[in-house]
This record gives sequence, C-alpha cells and structure tokens, in this order.
Amino acid sequence: MATSLLRVCPPGELLRPLAVPERLLLGPGPTSSPPLLLLAPRRGWSSSAGARGAGAMLASVLPPQVMDEIKAGIQYAFQTRNRLSLALSGSGHCAMEAALFNLLERGDTVLVAINGIWGQRAAEIARRVGANVCELLKPPGKYFTPQDIEQGLVQHKPLVLFITHGESSTGVLQPLEGLGELCHRHGCLLLVDAVASLGGAPIFMDQQEIDVLYSGSQKVLNAPPGSAPISFSERARDKLLRRKTKPPSFYLDMGCLANYWGCDGEPRRYHHTAPINSFFSLREGLALLAERGLESSWERHRANCSLLCQGLLDMGLELFVEEEQARLPTITTVRVPEGYSWKDITAFLMDKHGVEIAGGLGPTAGKVLRIGLMGCNSTRDSVERVLGALRDALQRCPRSRL
Amino acid sequence: MATSLLRVCPPGELLRPLAVPERLLLGPGPTSSPPLLLLAPRRGWSSSAGARGAGAMLASVLPPQVMDEIKAGIQYAFQTRNRLSLALSGSGHCAMEAALFNLLERGDTVLVAINGIWGQRAAEIARRVGANVCELLKPPGKYFTPQDIEQGLVQHKPLVLFITHGESSTGVLQPLEGLGELCHRHGCLLLVDAVASLGGAPIFMDQQEIDVLYSGSQKVLNAPPGSAPISFSERARDKLLRRKTKPPSFYLDMGCLANYWGCDGEPRRYHHTAPINSFFSLREGLALLAERGLESSWERHRANCSLLCQGLLDMGLELFVEEEQARLPTITTVRVPEGYSWKDITAFLMDKHGVEIAGGLGPTAGKVLRIGLMGCNSTRDSVERVLGALRDALQRCPRSRL
Repeated sequence: MATSLLRVCPPGELLRPLAVPERLLLGPGPTSSPPLLLLAPRRGWSSSAGARGAGAMLASVLPPQVMDEIKAGIQYAFQTRNRLSLALSGSGHCAMEAALFNLLERGDTVLVAINGIWGQRAAEIARRVGANVCELLKPPGKYFTPQDIEQGLVQHKPLVLFITHGESSTGVLQPLEGLGELCHRHGCLLLVDAVASLGGAPIFMDQQEIDVLYSGSQKVLNAPPGSAPISFSERARDKLLRRKTKPPSFYLDMGCLANYWGCDGEPRRYHHTAPINSFFSLREGLALLAERGLESSWERHRANCSLLCQGLLDMGLELFVEEEQARLPTITTVRVPEGYSWKDITAFLMDKHGVEIAGGLGPTAGKVLRIGLMGCNSTRDSVERVLGALRDALQRCPRSRL
Repeated sequence: MATSLLRVCPPGELLRPLAVPERLLLGPGPTSSPPLLLLAPRRGWSSSAGARGAGAMLASVLPPQVMDEIKAGIQYAFQTRNRLSLALSGSGHCAMEAALFNLLERGDTVLVAINGIWGQRAAEIARRVGANVCELLKPPGKYFTPQDIEQGLVQHKPLVLFITHGESSTGVLQPLEGLGELCHRHGCLLLVDAVASLGGAPIFMDQQEIDVLYSGSQKVLNAPPGSAPISFSERARDKLLRRKTKPPSFYLDMGCLANYWGCDGEPRRYHHTAPINSFFSLREGLALLAERGLESSWERHRANCSLLCQGLLDMGLELFVEEEQARLPTITTVRVPEGYSWKDITAFLMDKHGVEIAGGLGPTAGKVLRIGLMGCNSTRDSVERVLGALRDALQRCPRSRL
C-alpha cells in the first residue's frame, strides 16, 4: 500500500520490551505463582515435587504503565483516539455483555443484525437486561447492505444497532463503510463485534464512526483467551453518563473500569483483581501487531486466505460464502463435501496430521468445516499443511454410498 | 491431626501430570500462541523478532478430561459432593456476581453481613439486580456470632444470606459453625465468600451446609488470577430451577455453565471461549493442594500466621484483629505504627527488600498494613523475610514528630 490509511501510529512504548520486576508477593493476593503454574499450559509440566521450588514471581497489581501500553495498543489496533479504550477481564463474550450491559437500559430499543450465532447471542443478552429487542435477519453466509440497515433503522427507531464484523460461525466479513454515518443520521449508536476480524481485516473505528467496538485476545492477537479490548466513542460515553440506572454488572461497569484504567483523569481506585498474566500476554500480542503493522497484517491475512480458498476450490470443494469480497480473511467456511461426515474429517486431521480445524457452529452446525488462519498461524506453510491434510482426508475418510 | 475430618479425598486423576498435546490450531480460534505470549508474564520476554518463530501450541478447547479434573479438585478443596461444581471464566469478583446473579431475582430479599469491603460489594451487586437488600453490620475487625445472624434472619426473613469467610480487607476469619443449619431452619440459603480463605483455613461445604461457596485462583491456589471455583448445593440448585426470569448474565448463567462443564448429564454444548491457560494453571494449583493435603495446608497456614503475629507483637506492633482465633491465617492486618505513613513502609519494603505487602482497603484504608502468606508463600522463610524488612523499615522510614 503506497499511502497509509492509518491515523493512529504504532505506540513507541508498546514496542519496548515488557519489563516485569521479580518480587516476593506477600500482599493480600494475588500471590506468587510457582513456575509450574505459569508454564503449565505450554509444557504440560507435572505437579510432582521436583518441578517446584524456585517460586516464579509475578506482579500482583497490573503496573499502570503496562495498562497505558495496552490502551495505546488497543487505540492503534482499533484506529481510534477514544479515551475510553481498555481491556476487560474476560473473553470476547464478556466484552459483548459489557457493551450491551453498559449501552442499554430497560426499555431501550436495540436493533440486532442477525446472520449467524453472534447476533443471536447479542439478542439473548439484550433481552436479559430488559431491552426491547428488534431483529434484522439475513441467511447465514450473507451480509447486510446499507439499504437493509436503513430500513431497519427507519422501521424500529433503535437507540443502538448491533452488527458483527467477522461472523466466525459463517465466515462472513460484514462491510462497515457508511454504517456509522447512517446510524448517526437516525439517532442510533453503532456497536460492532470484531472478535474474529480485528487485525485480520481493515477496521477504522474513528473514520467509520463506530461507537462501541470490541474484540478478543485469542484470535489475530495470538494471546491466550481471557482478555478483551473494548473502546467507546464520545457519543457512546455520553449515553453512559446519561443512564438513569446502573448497569447490572459491577465487574463490567464501564464507569468503574474507566477509573481503574485511568481513562477518566481521576486517581485510580481498586476495582477488581485483574487477570494479570492474561493482560501481559495481551500486551505482547498488541506489541506484535504494532511492530509488524496493521496494514501488513491485513495484507498477510488476505493473501493467505485467498491461497487457501483457491486450494479448496481446486480440490473441488465448495466455499460457504459465495462472494469473494464477503469472505472473512481469518476464518474460511467450506461446505462439508457430499458423502462425508464433518466429524470424521476433523478427527482425521487431528489424529493423522495434528491439525485442528472445526465444524460449524449455530446455524452452520453440520454443514461446514471452519479453517482459521489467524495471527502467527496465517502463513503459507499453514495453508499448505491444512490443504495437504484435507486432500489426505478426502481419500482416506469413510464415504457413505449415495 | 490423628483422624481426618475430610470426607472428600484427593482425586487421583488430579495427581497425574497434566497432559497437553502439541497441535497446530487452525480452527476458528483460539489460535496457537507463540512462546513469548505464554511466557511473557514470567520472563518479561521482548517482542523482538528473535524470540519468535517456534509457535508454541495450546489447546483451543478445554479438554473434557481436564474439566473433570478441575471439578474433582474443587470438590476436594470445598469438601463437597455437589454435582454443580465448576470454575468460572473470571476472577473471584466474577464469582461473587455469578452467585448473586443466579441466586437472586428482582424483589428477592437478601441479607448481607457487612464487616468489610466484600459485604459492601455484595450489597452493591445485589442492588443492581433489583433485590431487596438488608444489611447486617459489624465494625471492621469483628465477626458475626450465630446470635447476630439469627436476629437478622428473624427480622428480615431473607431468601439468601451472604457472608465472608476470609475478610481480606480486615483480616477477619468468620466462624461458620452452625450457620448453615441456622439459615435452613429459617428458610434461607447460605452463600459464603471464601476467596481469601480457601485452603488456608478449614471449610467443609457439605458438613457446614453451605449452599453456595466460591473462591479465586490467585490466593492459596497460587495460580494467576482469572478463574474462580464455585459450587452450588442441591438446595441452591432447586432455587435456580424455580427461577421465573433468566439471570442478567449469559456469560455467568449457571444453567448454561452446568451444561458446558458436564454437570447436568446432557451432551456438552459450546457456551463461550474459556480462558484455557488460566484453567490449566488452576488445575495445577488444585493438584498441588490435593497432593499436599488440605489438612497439612490448613496447619501450615495456621503455624506461619501464628509465627508472623508473634513476631509483629514482639516488635511492639498492634494487630488489627484482637481475638487470636478470629485472625485469618492467610492475611494478617497490623495497625500502621503511630507516626509512620503506610505508603512509606510499603514503598520501603518494595524498594529496599523486594517484598510486596499492601496497605488497607475499604474500611481499613490508611489504618493497616496487610501481609499475605498464601499457598507456596506461607513459609517460615517468608515470615522471617517480611519481619526483617519491617524491622528495617521502622528504623529507616521517616517518622513524623508527634
């Protein structure tokens, strides 16, 4: 790309190595973790006595400087200058709840664009908080046009529109151009789920006038699941400030979290014990993205997804999302070939090739295979490996007689 | 201890090494983490290119066998046979919300025993879900007697009583004997917060007739913060089944989680992306507790706390909790000595001795220092180190002229 479209640059402080001093933690907790607990996920270390003793140290409170680095990393990844940008102490699903819990009050009308499992979930959560939920439906595999959205806005007059940028259950990438402006013309806030797409497909929170955007740590950011970046525009912040009732959750109350993360200019107060290690990992994931650059990340995901799709088509398989530009670059959905069982194929890939892919989810359950190429896994080598494994599966998996 | 009081034995499957096969994760996420992201917390590894490449693997879905091991570990730590025992994807605070979100409906009366910050928090959360909140108050540093509780039950006729076993803001250990029976005689469920006490002081969920019990991963269990064990008795489960409305949170809905964790006998369905690494660490923390034994853990925490308290008294310091048997074995509160600032002392310990202790919290802010001796940090060596550091601080920290 000749001219960069980015308005928010990679934050310098994020590019410096993470410094965590070693300390003996004798505060009221968290307490120091022995090495086996910190490393268990990677090495599968035994809990036998030999592995213990040294007592690895970690911080008990997230250093404010690391929090600031995470915030700067989120602002870069989201391409926003929103002050209210922070990471939640939970997975992407927790971020969906945080967005809806904070934006909605009982009786507020929310329009939920449903073309897969995530819209269904958002509608379910919005109903639990007592909102008036209107649904805008599209078949799985399809996306919403600005005309679809405008019709919904005119008909239902919602205060908030929920839409999914990367529909991981169907493999659809929702075009966002113009939707923010459209929503604002109709007095509505735009809430976007980018759990599966952030870093893998262009998104510009400020330029696209998105009011609330969230993602997860475990997709393109390559960190373990358990933390979730989120950001609120000034418009969205105004709605929070005008609330008549408190959000149902204290854990996810953006007012408290804004203070905890130093977004409100007040001295930081204790709110809850953060998943410190998860945040350190998130910080490193954001650093990696900042170091390599968003545009190069988008381009790499596009190119490898393209290569994968071509390979699948060459094998005679059928892609679930027909239009090429509507395909999510991070997760590709391919129809289960006739006569095969998706379970046989995924089990074969796991057992014979050590490669994990998934079946469908929600509306695509039983119909598709889902192949993810995200972050450090979006490589030509991964594409070749999964294509080779699939070719092998089609030859060796049992086929029902038609 | 001659005869064991334990009814639930250390689960054999938890004592075996955790086995996590290495795999290339090409599903719809979580995706594989490079080693630096998994190890960042421990080593503070740089995000420079050299550290990357190998691509460490982790599981994308928590293996059911590991979930079962965690459940067995929780049953052992809680001394319960409750089927509905599982770990939540959030910190101890998240568990408090889960307990109240699921137990309470709008208009339900809940009696909250408040003698520190945790009762205050529980009351705040209960109000957010629309419950009728009655408060039972004691000054910080004091505990509730069965007479106090019975008066409250008679006066307010609550459906749920909330009480804190280990009050980490004040250093009080709440005696639980007889409270369960008392509550049940008055048609009330007993909800106990054991975030700071589990594994450090005896608790017997079944024998003590506790209906909902929860804790956190980051105290005695020595795992990083971010997961929280919780268990519901059959009585509590009955109340969940009789609910007229859904709990406000889908993320923390015990009905969904019971299925996700295989507690309901139905095939497990996808619910949310779990913080897998946190759960692996929790599994190892529970394994350590099971291996060493609860009784030995209780005894070690008691002995080291005793040693610490004696050392503090010998130094001329005043303990915040007067009655010896009411002192929490995991967290000791000591009054800030006259003429000193708590900030000077904690900063001195950190800077000159690399030891982290904390100041007060909530009602004890500014009044006390809090010293934690939890899990692998509850050792004679830790006691000596913190006492030596405090002695040094009293000599070298600035003292205001009185």
